Order: sequence, then structure tokens, then C-alpha cells
Amino acid sequence: MGTLVQSVAVLLCTVSVSVICSYGVIGVNGYIKYNTGSGIVKGKLNVHLVPHSHGDLGWLKTIDQYYVGSNNSIQGACVENVLDSVVMSLHRDRNRKFIFAEMAFFNRWWEEHSPEIQDEVKKLVDAGQLEFVNGGWCMHDEATTHYIDMIDQTTLGHRLIKSQFNKTPRAGWQIDPFGHSAVQAYLLGAELGFDSIHFARIDYQDRAKRKADKSLEVIWQASRTFGSSSQIFANAFPVHYSPPNRFHFEVDDDFIPVQDNPLLFDFNVNTRVHDFINAATIQANVTRTNHIMWTMGDDFQYQYAESWFKQMDKLIHYVNKDGQVNALYSTPSIYTDAKRAASKSWPLKTDDYFPYADSANAYWTGYFTSRPALKRYIRFLSGYYQATRQLEFLIGRRSAGPNTYKLGDALGIAQHHDAVTGTAKQHTTNDYAKRLSIGASEAEVTANSALSRLIDSKLNGRCAKPTMTFSQCQLLNISFCPSTEDNIPQGKSLLVVAYNPLGWERTDIVRIPVNDHNLVVKDSAGKIIESQYVELDNVTRNLRSFYVKAYIGISPKKAPQFWLFFQASVPPLGWNTFFISKASRRGNSRTMYVSTMDSPKEETIEIGPGNLKLSFSSASGQLKRMFNSKSGIDIPVQQSYLWYASSRGDADFQSSGAYIFRPNGSPPQVVSRSVPLKVIRGPLVHEVHQQFSSWVYQIIRVYRDKGHAEVEFTIGPIPTDDSIGKEVITRMRANMVTNTVFYTDSNARDFLKRVRDYRPGWPLEVTQRVAGNYYPINLGIFIEDKKSEFSILVDRATGGGSINDGEIELMLHRRILNDDSRGVGEALDESVCADNTCEGLTIRGNYYMSINKLGTGSRWRRTTGQEIYSPLVLAFSHGNTEKWKSSHLSKATSMAANYSLPINVVLITLQELDDGHVLLRLGHIYEAGEDTDHSSLAKVELKKLFAKKRIKMLKETSLSTNQDKSWKKRTTWKVEGETSSEPNPIRGDPIDMSSLIVELGPMEIRTFLLKF
Amino acid sequence: MGTLVQSVAVLLCTVSVSVICSYGVIGVNGYIKYNTGSGIVKGKLNVHLVPHSHGDLGWLKTIDQYYVGSNNSIQGACVENVLDSVVMSLHRDRNRKFIFAEMAFFNRWWEEHSPEIQDEVKKLVDAGQLEFVNGGWCMHDEATTHYIDMIDQTTLGHRLIKSQFNKTPRAGWQIDPFGHSAVQAYLLGAELGFDSIHFARIDYQDRAKRKADKSLEVIWQASRTFGSSSQIFANAFPVHYSPPNRFHFEVDDDFIPVQDNPLLFDFNVNTRVHDFINAATIQANVTRTNHIMWTMGDDFQYQYAESWFKQMDKLIHYVNKDGQVNALYSTPSIYTDAKRAASKSWPLKTDDYFPYADSANAYWTGYFTSRPALKRYIRFLSGYYQATRQLEFLIGRRSAGPNTYKLGDALGIAQHHDAVTGTAKQHTTNDYAKRLSIGASEAEVTANSALSRLIDSKLNGRCAKPTMTFSQCQLLNISFCPSTEDNIPQGKSLLVVAYNPLGWERTDIVRIPVNDHNLVVKDSAGKIIESQYVELDNVTRNLRSFYVKAYIGISPKKAPQFWLFFQASVPPLGWNTFFISKASRRGNSRTMYVSTMDSPKEETIEIGPGNLKLSFSSASGQLKRMFNSKSGIDIPVQQSYLWYASSRGDADFQSSGAYIFRPNGSPPQVVSRSVPLKVIRGPLVHEVHQQFSSWVYQIIRVYRDKGHAEVEFTIGPIPTDDSIGKEVITRMRANMVTNTVFYTDSNARDFLKRVRDYRPGWPLEVTQRVAGNYYPINLGIFIEDKKSEFSILVDRATGGGSINDGEIELMLHRRILNDDSRGVGEALDESVCADNTCEGLTIRGNYYMSINKLGTGSRWRRTTGQEIYSPLVLAFSHGNTEKWKSSHLSKATSMAANYSLPINVVLITLQELDDGHVLLRLGHIYEAGEDTDHSSLAKVELKKLFAKKRIKMLKETSLSTNQDKSWKKRTTWKVEGETSSEPNPIRGDPIDMSSLIVELGPMEIRTFLLKF
Repeated sequence: MGTLVQSVAVLLCTVSVSVICSYGVIGVNGYIKYNTGSGIVKGKLNVHLVPHSHGDLGWLKTIDQYYVGSNNSIQGACVENVLDSVVMSLHRDRNRKFIFAEMAFFNRWWEEHSPEIQDEVKKLVDAGQLEFVNGGWCMHDEATTHYIDMIDQTTLGHRLIKSQFNKTPRAGWQIDPFGHSAVQAYLLGAELGFDSIHFARIDYQDRAKRKADKSLEVIWQASRTFGSSSQIFANAFPVHYSPPNRFHFEVDDDFIPVQDNPLLFDFNVNTRVHDFINAATIQANVTRTNHIMWTMGDDFQYQYAESWFKQMDKLIHYVNKDGQVNALYSTPSIYTDAKRAASKSWPLKTDDYFPYADSANAYWTGYFTSRPALKRYIRFLSGYYQATRQLEFLIGRRSAGPNTYKLGDALGIAQHHDAVTGTAKQHTTNDYAKRLSIGASEAEVTANSALSRLIDSKLNGRCAKPTMTFSQCQLLNISFCPSTEDNIPQGKSLLVVAYNPLGWERTDIVRIPVNDHNLVVKDSAGKIIESQYVELDNVTRNLRSFYVKAYIGISPKKAPQFWLFFQASVPPLGWNTFFISKASRRGNSRTMYVSTMDSPKEETIEIGPGNLKLSFSSASGQLKRMFNSKSGIDIPVQQSYLWYASSRGDADFQSSGAYIFRPNGSPPQVVSRSVPLKVIRGPLVHEVHQQFSSWVYQIIRVYRDKGHAEVEFTIGPIPTDDSIGKEVITRMRANMVTNTVFYTDSNARDFLKRVRDYRPGWPLEVTQRVAGNYYPINLGIFIEDKKSEFSILVDRATGGGSINDGEIELMLHRRILNDDSRGVGEALDESVCADNTCEGLTIRGNYYMSINKLGTGSRWRRTTGQEIYSPLVLAFSHGNTEKWKSSHLSKATSMAANYSLPINVVLITLQELDDGHVLLRLGHIYEAGEDTDHSSLAKVELKKLFAKKRIKMLKETSLSTNQDKSWKKRTTWKVEGETSSEPNPIRGDPIDMSSLIVELGPMEIRTFLLKF
Repeated sequence: MGTLVQSVAVLLCTVSVSVICSYGVIGVNGYIKYNTGSGIVKGKLNVHLVPHSHGDLGWLKTIDQYYVGSNNSIQGACVENVLDSVVMSLHRDRNRKFIFAEMAFFNRWWEEHSPEIQDEVKKLVDAGQLEFVNGGWCMHDEATTHYIDMIDQTTLGHRLIKSQFNKTPRAGWQIDPFGHSAVQAYLLGAELGFDSIHFARIDYQDRAKRKADKSLEVIWQASRTFGSSSQIFANAFPVHYSPPNRFHFEVDDDFIPVQDNPLLFDFNVNTRVHDFINAATIQANVTRTNHIMWTMGDDFQYQYAESWFKQMDKLIHYVNKDGQVNALYSTPSIYTDAKRAASKSWPLKTDDYFPYADSANAYWTGYFTSRPALKRYIRFLSGYYQATRQLEFLIGRRSAGPNTYKLGDALGIAQHHDAVTGTAKQHTTNDYAKRLSIGASEAEVTANSALSRLIDSKLNGRCAKPTMTFSQCQLLNISFCPSTEDNIPQGKSLLVVAYNPLGWERTDIVRIPVNDHNLVVKDSAGKIIESQYVELDNVTRNLRSFYVKAYIGISPKKAPQFWLFFQASVPPLGWNTFFISKASRRGNSRTMYVSTMDSPKEETIEIGPGNLKLSFSSASGQLKRMFNSKSGIDIPVQQSYLWYASSRGDADFQSSGAYIFRPNGSPPQVVSRSVPLKVIRGPLVHEVHQQFSSWVYQIIRVYRDKGHAEVEFTIGPIPTDDSIGKEVITRMRANMVTNTVFYTDSNARDFLKRVRDYRPGWPLEVTQRVAGNYYPINLGIFIEDKKSEFSILVDRATGGGSINDGEIELMLHRRILNDDSRGVGEALDESVCADNTCEGLTIRGNYYMSINKLGTGSRWRRTTGQEIYSPLVLAFSHGNTEKWKSSHLSKATSMAANYSLPINVVLITLQELDDGHVLLRLGHIYEAGEDTDHSSLAKVELKKLFAKKRIKMLKETSLSTNQDKSWKKRTTWKVEGETSSEPNPIRGDPIDMSSLIVELGPMEIRTFLLKF
């Protein structure tokens, strides 16, 4: 019988058999024990394989979805799998290593696991197999975060690591944030005890230049004040934080496994070894010393860790057998030690890494502003968390019952580089808001309870039920506050307790909605104090109606008729009580002032009940000039709203979006050239109401006793019926010669000099005139000429710049119809819904304008900045004034009577920790040379700060409390062309344990753990 | 200062807080130890969770790609990960279980792992945590496989399990094959020692009916011959072999994890428990007893096993805490024991589960024929493997050097239900062919070496270098055989050694290509034997030219001029040598017959040198009649080629494809109604050459001494320039009244009665007249009327049926332009390339037609079937006849002289195993009642079978050698409406150790391990 046309591929077989045979020497049939124990080998190129998994605390999915691995249709990611499987894999080979960064994830995992597994993990950590890097709650953003939030979230994580593992992270691991700040480098880096920081994202032009001259790795000295003592080794990766091409090994991904079983087809050891050496050589060519780092991981990788380790084991084994280069399991610490040991000189870097662009038309400067409501909510709660922790401390932290932990947890998560940045999907953003809201609610209960106890003179702080209950009003800005709106019965008062979280006595204007313009406000001494009524405007009425429904789910009753303004003076770290009751007779014109409204008749309208005057043109309705009668500074300033049309990426697919600001190339459109104007005057405040358009409303308030103007903007819904995304700015055009220079803050702490169309250290090719000159603003921005300074402070993270000389612009709101192709996959098109109606998000907020003599602006910026960050906490109740007074302490400070912190020092943190220690952070708020008087050594007397308690123990620690202050002594790095003539920074001396006086030099932050 | 519009989702929070709180009782903060240890609970619905991962030995990727996890862009699958991670997970909780089926995968893993891990796995197996099910090398197909291949591949796996774990699989686990055969149930099931078999795929109408009357689970009694002793519990799944919807838990897949941490959002324990109970209840409603099985797995799942086990742990814990149903980790064995213990009655099933349809127009009957070249290659090598193992045994197996292991391994893989079925991607198919080719090459070397030693009378079997080397010709069917084509020098002979793997003496026609028609063929006694030359036809010339280049990569020299036919008689399990040399003078017309060719002149042309005559019409060129002058049977038979146009799924997206046969609804097109005819006559054979078209060529050979006609078809390239896929059949129209009945074999062993448009046991709604009446054919198909039988035997797995009374059709080749949407993702459009030219695959093969008196056909079918499966093995050499004869044994048998196996018994396996045992399988080849004489007890004398060896040890075992014969005694199952009047099957008695005579009843297969 004939057979058939058969034996397909006989040819192939012949070839393959010989291939298999020629490699037969490498593997043997059966089990191979891989030699993974290579350490560093001198004289060879050492390839440090650093296994890692980058875990966003929310982005495309929420943090808990990422943790448990739900919603995988959006993204296959489960951090629980990562940690479970990594622990198993680390056990399988004691040479394997892994680094982990995000402690909010780790904490979830840790708490769910058995003591046995916890013990195993402790052993892995002790053996250096599992190393925590960064170690904060999240990998925070560096552009839109406040330094206090950065410190708080890092402390949360570092304390967990310390308490569970007695370890101190050594490496900063900011691999994903979209640019890198000076404060990150020196404060959250060097001052934290890190000796290195590692990241992937720097400007593409910068990167190209650094690859060319092998300066990706630098010594970063980011503090002008601290100089070389703030040095940190900074490693910018040559490509990204993933491995070289074709060396990713995620389960289910398409990769070429090292196939070393000669009995199977596709044996490929030599090819893979060759690929490895090739990739290593390419990287070695752009790196100094013979150490290179391969970041072996990516977003949420190591779902099944063995998939990675198995391949790395084989690569290490066969590459080292080959012998041309040396491969080893490593960590950033081991890598940094190797770099230090090489004792080469490194380039010096002194500025920051902002703004970040990954290509010519892709400047990541949109996210400085994206989701402005979320950014404000986070910033507001940051200050609120600070205040409520103080109150919690003052009354004693309760282990059971409401406390501030959840708010701290939520804020820690919200600092993540896709959270506060506004670059997460909408559902994830809602999750952040939900967490913050839950945390805020519990903190509010905590604060109200603490206040009740503090104030109740019978309780004297003891833990019994106080007689009073308080409420607060989180939606005060849209005039929703049932406590103040309610009718005040005869014989009763509306009690307003104002708590001052600052270490200084302060006087502020309180503004609350009321339904009666015939009220009397008395202070705790019973004295009637001046007040002023302003009728509620229609814009606020409409906002209130829609947003209360949208946010609380109830339809609010009729809007209150008036805003009641009165001036409140409150002692430092203390409170004052104000009693508001019905006036016995009408029209006490001296103290109860109903504002007048005038329709402008002259060509120029001037407002300002105090020193500061603002002039407006009646023709255009716009600001023309600012003048301070005290300082004599007089600057023509024009202010208007404009919008950039977002690029839709028609030409090159690069749209403007959540990350990227890319205007379509046209100049910004003016919202309105002719603005209807309303002027309201009274003794405390003058207001100018400007309706720029149906969707831009502005109130400028000039207070009698403040040196600045407060601008309240209400923007939205941004119209998109023309299918054009809009990025709305306010622009101040001052008549000043600024020579391309302006200043912006770094994380609300240091101010950095910015020069338009220029980067220190590398030649910038300008591809985006506007977007490429935007910088992140958290505290403020200012310009100066030979005589004056013009400063703006902000109430949240904001993008801005000085696009033309004499100008300052802030981007306040963005509504965009395209996605910018950086992964989030949604257009930044926020909307709010109530009663089945959805509309674009309206935001309301403030910024503050001041003109000052050259050299004096910093005083205003520093002090006012603190006031903005830490507003008075207002708690409301109702009661009989006399009865109340008899049983309550209406006004008090927790400090020694008449003691106040120096004007250049702030209380950054005062918090009772869960282990009973009290955490105290004091911070000097002036840089070296910033102010002629205040940039000097300051002293804080702890005995007076804690006048009512006795300090039993005090220990100075690093910024995150996880090590003694002594870590400071460490070797510095060799820097190219170093000049050693740098002046020594002023730092406070070690604390004298008897006097208990803390000295602080400029910008110094000192951290203490105390026991009372 | 005003805050902003803030606190998105305050409403949401309120809701969520309460949700979290209400579940607070279930979980506690921190670690939860899950109670996974529930066994079976009486009185409750028991949900048996059976964790499994279905591993195709090649499909979209090759077996090794699946194993190591390469080529993941096609399919994310890595069996190494599955086994690695399962082992780790089983360790983590001793209640967890897992089943594994495919030992070719397991073997790869096992050999790569350390003794320590092997020991761990042994403990898991001992503890019942890891259970092997099925346990063959692969999960073989059941339609296109030969029973010997099924036994061989199962034995490979079972012996591995036995030797490494001392375990015997109890459950058949054929979850994926596309329909289920009778031989699977009784031979590879009951006779193998399985007490249950589990599968997913049965006809959708059948399934619906079985769900309705709770008869998915049956007692399957698939052997008419063995009756109730062949019972097996058969579990057809209600849906598929995946878990119920929303209970799959593969890493990275989108599923809803059980979220039981009340501190995280999205807590969902109650919902998931409810979903579980709901899914269980739905299944309980279609199942008898209170045990249901959930198949917790899917294709290549458990890449990271913990992802599954973590969820199952939680489900078991919380579902059992809820208490409405009981969930447990289980295996098919535990499940089957529970079913048995329930002592309910079960429906009886006696036929098979073919054909399989998953919807009205989706009959999986295309794969019975898909890739006919591959199917033939596998079938050819199956017989070749049998023969070479005999030779290897005869000479003694060598542990080093070439052996038959690789061929067995490749054949084991090729039985996989996406391999021999033709349903793998082309590149995977190439991989199977490559493995087979490598295996065949090594087996050929083994066989040649063994033959050399056997024949060399000086060596007498000793292990020294023999004086002769042999070659074989794998491409003989296309006339490529350098050894026979070469010129034979004067004084030398072409030596042809023919080895007969059958246990009977046989006489066959040898046909080899030669370049001389003046050769003398002598037998080993020196006698000239009759020979006949036929000129090589052009179709074969062209095939040879293109395919030798395509397959071996060399351009063959000029095609040989002739086929030389001669008759060869060879003793059982022995050989004979034929000496071919140049004739001393020309034209020895009596023994060297050059065939004549006549051009038909009469209306009817009759051919046939022996008893069988075939008549053809000269007008149409087609067969008209078959007549046997000895039996007197005379049947008008018309034969032609036709093709079904493949449906392109225009209406409902269901195309014809690799799996599915779906003609487009038109009747089949006749290839040609008028066929050019060529008649060739000679003393040994008459040939009719019919050119049906440019792509269908047929030669019918009628031999003088054979009772049947051999049809050699050459089909291809099937034209597709009309964009129509074509499925080519040969159709025989016999003038017989068959009343819808025909017979097809089950895996080349039993014959099953088939009735057109009908299924025993359930009412068939006919939706596909043709495809729904196709059945798999491995041995043959026949029809009968009151007088006669008309039988066809095939040379490979083939689809066919009897679509109209009196008809038989075989589908021989398919070329289709669409994919049929069952996953393979390629159209079945095979092509072959050489010299940058590609063309559609041409296939060549044979089928065999016989007409017999009613009741006598089985003798022809059974005996001829064996001859087709086990052709003579031809080995060629050149040498001096006399010198050769003086040093070689030209003709011999390994059995006792003149001993022969009974005509109703075959040697299924004779193989020396790697542990030194010899495996002997003897099989009776008649069913009870099939033949009046041969369906009787047969006896084999082992002493004569092994005349030249002494049996030192003999042990009878189960079919796969993994347990003693004693397993046979087991309880039977209760069957609904059972009638106990069934006659006892005839089985041989236990072997008498002194006489060593083996008795075999009809269909009995007996397996022995021997030592000599």
C-alpha cells in the first residue's frame, strides 16, 4: 500500500535537531539549579536587576479595586496577588529581592494576613530580600501637593514600616510622578534620611542631553538655604521604569521566555544572553561607573511574581556563566552604595525638574490645574486635618470612637500622583472624594466633640458628656449652613466658636449666611462688635440650590437673604466665642451695617475701606489699578478672564487633556471685554461683583484691615456647545518690567526663580510658548520690578506662569473634550448631576492679590499663606448666652497666656499618635535671605507652647519620625567642579532639655516625639 | 475665606458607610482563617468544586509554547506556571485539591524540577490533594483516533504516574473532545479501570432533553459484546467545563472577587454567597442526587493558581457559614463515590455521542476529515511504531542510542483532540509533523539497525556492528526511493527485506519505483518470482517533483520510469528477503510482465485478473458494477467524486471550517460526468486510471489474489479561484435497499449501527441533512441488504456516511476559505511551498472496496483492516546475492516455525519497556456474533509466540499496565428498568502458568508484563 504525501517539515526537523544538539552542553536533561547569588563583581559591568511593581493608589480603577483585583475589565491589576506571590517567590530563592513602595496598599495586605505569614515577611525584610522604598502611604505627586501633605503621608507609611519591621527606607522611589520638585529632593529626600532618589520622568530634551553627556545621574542640591547639606543622589532613568525592551516577564504577557530545556523546541539561551548583553551595553553607554540599574517591573506587574523571577533567575545564571557582564538581584540602596563606592564625580543639579514634557507638543502642565474642585477639597481638608489633629491632641486622642485617622488615610491616598493631580478616571475621582468625605465627617465629629469638652468649664477636659453639641458647615462657601440660617428665638443666641490653628493671635473676617439683617454680634466679653450685611447674590443662590441637592441629596430650603460679616479675633491655638442674637431694636447703624450698592457713574470707580484701593473702569467694568496708601505702591493692573481653546490633536493626535496642556495655537480668547459691574460698600469690606459672562462671575473683596484683595471666582459650567475644550485663565497685566523672570513656589514652601523660555542647565528648544512656561503653584506666584512686587496667593494647586513680561496668569478651570492619550482614556469633562439634570462642573474659589515694596512681599506671602492654609474652624450651636457663659470658657488659648510663636515659625504638626507619643513639627517659613528680619534664627519655648502640660520625654527625630536626628551625619558626594566656598546654613542647636527651647534656622523643620 | 464647591459624593458616602457597617459582623479587621475543610454533608446540596486547568497539547500555540509560555500574543498560556503555582497553592491549605490530566505537560514539568519539589508533589498526590485524572499523555480525540493509539498514549501517561507516584487514575476526564466514542467508554474507560468519565460536549438537542429529564449523568454501557461488565458512570456537564457564570477567577480576568474586608469599599460577601446558592440551585434542578460538580477551571487557567484558590476558599467558608448548601473541594473520584453511595438508579446509555453539534447548523463533523495528510501521517506512523517496537524488542531495547521513544511521544501528542483532528493552527500542525518526523527518523534508524542484527547470521542478535546497512523510503507513495531507483550494477542485487508485523503469514504486493524494466526478482530460495511493470503516470511525476522539494528540500532527479510490482510472502512476525537484479536476457515474458495499456473500445470495460471484476462505462469513464465470480455477488455500483460548497456563514455567521462541516445547502457538485480512462493490464494487477479533473486523479487496482479493489486517489490542489471552499467526497452508489441503516466503526474496533436522521435515545430534529448524518470512520463503513454487504475500508480517519439508501460517501479532502468561529481563527486552507511557489495541498491515499455475501463481510474487513494498519516494512540495501546469503538469514519468523496467531487474534503491542519488562497485548478482533466462526474463544500459545525466549515472569494487568487484573471485580451501578437477562460475555480464563496459553473471548484485549 502506498503511504501518502506526508512528513510535513522534514527539512525543518533536520535543522532543529542540529540546533538542539549544539546547545546540548548548556542544559542537561532534568533539573537545573540556577546560580542567582552573584553579588557585585568589580571590573565588570554590573547590571542591577531591581524587581518592582508600580502600584497606583487609584487611577483607572479605585485603590480597593486595584487591591482586590476587581473591575479587571478596565485593567487587569490586583495588588493582593502581587504581594502574595512575591512573598512566595522570595521564599523560593534567598537571593531574590523585591522592592515595594506604596504603604497604603501594603497596609491592606498586612492586616489581612496571619501572624505566621507576617513573621515570614519580617524575615524577608530582615534579610534584605524585601526592601521598602519611598515608604510613604502613596507615591505622591510633586507638582500639586502641599509639603505638609507630603510629610503627613510619608510619616503614615514610615511609621508603619518602623513599627512592624523596625526599618528605615533609604531610597526615594518617585518613578512615575510627572516632574520632580525641589522640596521633594531636599525635604522629602535628604531631610527624610534618603540618600538617593530614583525617577523616570524628566523633560525629553533634558533627557537627551543628559544621555549624551552621561548626566542622567546627578547630585541634586535643591535647597538654596541648605546648600550641600541637602544633597541627594538622583537617578533619572534612561527610558522609563519598565525593563529594557523584551525583558518584561508578566504572566500572560507576550515575551520570549528563556528556554533552556534542550529537550523542548525553541531552545534560546544564547540568543537571550546576547540580547541581555546588548541591552546592558546600550545603557552602559549613557551611564557613569560600571553599574547600571534595570527596573524590572511596571504598573501592577508581578501579579504572579514567579513569572518574573523564573526568567530573571535564568538570565542571571546564564549571563554570568557567559561572563561578559555581571547580573545580580539588587535594590536602589545596593545600587546607590555601589555608586558611592565608585567615588566618581557627579554633575550638580540645583533647580527642579518642572515642567515635564515627553515630546515637543506634550507638556504635562495641564494637570497643575485639572479637577480644581478636587484640588481645593484636598487642600481645604489638609488644613482641616491639621486643625482637627490639634483639637484631638488637646483633649486626648481616643482609641475607640471617632478620630482623625480616616481623614489622614484619605488624604494620604489623595496625594497619589493620579489623585490630586486630577488624572484619574471620574469613578476613581469619586472614590477619592468619598474617602475624603468620610474622613472629614469623622474628623468633624472629633473636632466638635473636642471643642465641646475644651470649652465646657465643668468638664475641664475630662471625658464625660459635654453639655453642648456643635455643628460645622462644610458648604459654607455656597451659603449652605442650617445652623446660621435658622431663626434665632428670643432669649437665645447663635453661638459661633472660632478655633485658631495658628500659633499666632489673628483677626479675621467671619462671613456666614443669615436670614435676618437685624442681628447683634457680641464677643465673649459681651461687647457688641461691628458687623456688616451683604445681600446674597443670585449666582450663589443658584449654586446653592443645585449643588446642595447634588452633594447631600436634599433640596435646600430658600436661600438665606444675607451674608453677615464680622471681625473675629482669636488667640493662638485657642478659641473665641461669638454670640449672635436678635437686636432689641432695629437699625443700629454703627454696628450693624447693611451694605449699600452703587451703580457706577464716574469713569473710574475706586473701592477699598482701608489702605488698599482698587480702581475699575466703568466703561469696561474691569480692574485698572491697585494702590496702597500706606506703602505708596501704585501699579496699573488690568485683570480679565480668558480661555485657551484645547488642541484636539487634529494634526498629530496630541490633544490637550487631563495631563497635558496644549492650546490649539490661537491666542487665548477674552471672555468679555465689557463687564457689568456692581459695587457694594460697608465699613468692613467693599465688594465689586463682575459678571464676565453667564459662566464667569467674580467678586473682589477689599477688607478694611487687610493689605490684599480677595478675589472670589465662580466659573462654570464652561460651555462646550461649540465642541471646543476650554482652559480658563485669569490674567493680571501689571505695568512692570520683569525681564522674563517670575517666581513660583515649590510645594508651598521654597520660592524658585523661573525664567521664561529658559531652563537652567540645558538649552531649551521652545516648542510650546505657553504650555512650556507653565509651572505648578501651591502657595503663590510673584513678579517684581525695581520698585515693587506683585504677588498672587492661591487656595489650591494651580497652574500658572508669566507668559509676557509684567503678566501673571493662573489657569483656574479646564473642560476638555478629548483624551490626551496618556492612559486615563477619558476626556477631562467634569459634570455634576441633580434631579436627572447634569451640567458641567462649576467651581468657586479664591485667590489673593497684593502689591508690596520690593523686598517686603515675602512677609505678606508667608503670613497670609499660613492664614489661607489654616482658616479659622467655625463651630455653631444655639443657647442662652448667660447660661452658656456661666458654664463655658468662651475664649482661651492652649498656650501660655500672651505667648505666641515667632512670626517666622509655624506649627506644622501637633498630633497625638496611636502609640501615645505626641508628634510636634515646627517649621521656619523663611528662606535664607528672603526677608531682612525674618530670615533669622527663631526660638520656640516648648514650655509655653504646652503651658498646660508637662513634658516628660522629648526626642528629636527625622522628618518622618522613623529615626534619630543623628542620621544627619553622613558622607557627601563628590561633585564636578565643586567650589567649597558655600556658607554654612543656619540650623538650630540641639535642644537643651532643661530650657526646652527649640531653635530654628531659615527653612528648618524640626520634628519631635514627646510624652507628657 | 470661602471653601469651594467640594465634597463630591457626600451622599454616596453616607450610603456606603451604612452598608459597610451592616456587614461588620461578618468580617473582623485583620486576618480571617477560612474554613475550607468541609467534606460531604448529608441532607444538603453538596457543591463539589473541582479545580482543573485544561491544557491542550498544542492548538493555537505549539505544545512547547504552551508549556514555557512563549508566543503569548496568540494566547496567554503557560503550563509551567499552572503547575508551579498550583503546587504552591496546594501547600498553603491542605484542604485544597486540584486535578491534572495531560501527562505530556506534566512530564515536562516533572523533569525540570528538583528532587525536593518532586518529594513535595509526591506528598500532595499521596494526600489526595493532587489527583491525576485521565492520565494519558494527552486528552485524546475520540473520533479520529485508532484504538491502539489511544491505548499507547494512555499507557505512556499511566506508567509515568505509576512509576513516580504509584497511583492509578480512576476518572476519565475527556472534557473537551468533540463527541464521545463507544470505545472510549468501554475500552479506554471501563477496561482501563476507570469508574467514571466526565465530559462537556454532547449534542445540544441531546443535552436539552437530558437536562429536562435529569439524564445528563448515565450509566454508559458501550460494548455490545461485554454488556454490563463494560459499564461506566458518565457525567455530561450541563453547560461546559468552565465554572458557572461569574465564578471564574483567573488572574487578570474580569471577575468579582469575594470582598470580605469590611474596611475596604465594595464589601460583597452576601451577594456572592447568594449568587453561589443561586447557581447551585439551577444546576441541582437538572441533576439527580444532591451532589453537583462545578468544574472550576478552563483552558490554561490557574496561571496563578492562588487567584482561584483564594476565591474558592472564601466561597467555601462563607457559603458553608450561610448553611443553605454545602461547598467543598472535590475531585471526580470523590464525586463519583458520592454518586455511587447515593444508590439511585441511573439511565442506561448504549450507543455513543456522535455526531456532536453545538447548535442547529454547527455539526462538528468536518474535523473527521480535516487535514487528511496529517491524519494519514499519524495513522501510517501508528502502524510503523507498532512494527518498529517489535523489531526493537526482538533485538533488545537500547537505553542509549536510537530507540522508538520519541516516536511514541510524538504519536502520544498527536492523538490530542486538536492534533489528529486537524483543528490546530497551521504552525502548530507543522510542529506535530516535525515531532512525528523526528520520531519516525529515529524509529527508522532503530528498525534498520534491528533488522541488520536480526538478519546477520553471524551476529545472531548480538550487539556488534552488523555488516549491512539498510534504508527505508518514507516517500514511496510518490515514487521517491533512491535505493530502488538507482541503477543496479552487474553482479549486485537490490535487496528488499520485508518485515511482517502481523502474527499471520501474509502475501502482499510490493510496489517500488525502478528505472529498468528488465529486472529479475528472486525470493530467498533463489526462485524467480513473477513481477509486473507499470509506467509511472504523469500525476505521480509532478507530485514527486514538487513534494520532494517541499519536504526534503532537494530537487529529486528525474522520475523513475516504472513501478515494479511483485508478490511477497512473509512469515508472521518475521521477514523475507527479495533479490532484484538485472536480467541476463531481455523479455522473460512469463515472469517480467510490462503492462499493456488498452484504449477502451467497447461500451463496457471489465477489469480484474482474479475473482473480482469491475466494469466501467466507456462513455462516462465511471465504475458501473462489481462482481465476484467466486461468491457470485454482483452489485451495480456507480462511483464518482463530488464536492460540497462550504457555507460561508453569510446568513448566520456559521461557516464551514476546521471543526464544522456545513455545506452551503446546494447538492454536491459532480467533479466530472465524463472521465478520461486508461486501462492497464498485467498478470498481477489491473489498473484503471481515471482523470476526473485537473485536480482529481484516481487509480483503481484490482489484484489477482485480493478480493477487493484498491482505490488510490490523488486530490488537489482544490481550486478556490471561485472563492468557494470545497469539501471533496467520493460517493459509491450501490443498488441496494438499505433502509437508512449503515455501519461505521468506533476507533477502528467495534462496528456501530447508524440510522440516517435518527439517534437512539432521543428525538432528533434534523437541521443539517448531510452534516448531521456524518460519522467518524477509522476502519471502515459498510451497508447491507438482504443478500450482500458492500464495505469500504479507509487508510486514515475519514468522515463519511450514507446520505441516501444504498450510498456510501467518504469525505477525502477539504479546502475552506473561512474560519468556523470555534477558536482556531484560521481557515482550513492548507498549502505547500517549494521554490517560492505555494499551492493548495494535494493528498494521495487509498481506500478499499469489497462486496461480500451477507454475513461474510466481517472476515474481509477484519483481516484486511489489519493488513492496512500494519503494512510490510520494507528496508533496502544493495549487495552480492550469494555473499549475502552466506552470511544472512534471508527468511525467518521470530515465532515457532509454522506457528501463527489464530485469524481472530492480533498482536496489539509487543514492546520492551524502559524498566526491562516486555509489554504484550493480544486482542480478539471480532465482536460477539459478528462472524459465525470467528466470534469465538481463541487461544494463543505464548511459548510458541516467543519460541526463541524463555518466559521467566508473566503478570496480567489492566489495559495500561498500571494495575493488576484483579481490579475487574467491582460493584455495578443500578440502572433504570434493568433487565438482568443479559447473556454473560465470553472471556478468557486466567492464564495457566505452566501451559502459558492465553484465551481471548470476542473483543477481549489482554495485557501482560513479561520478563524473559
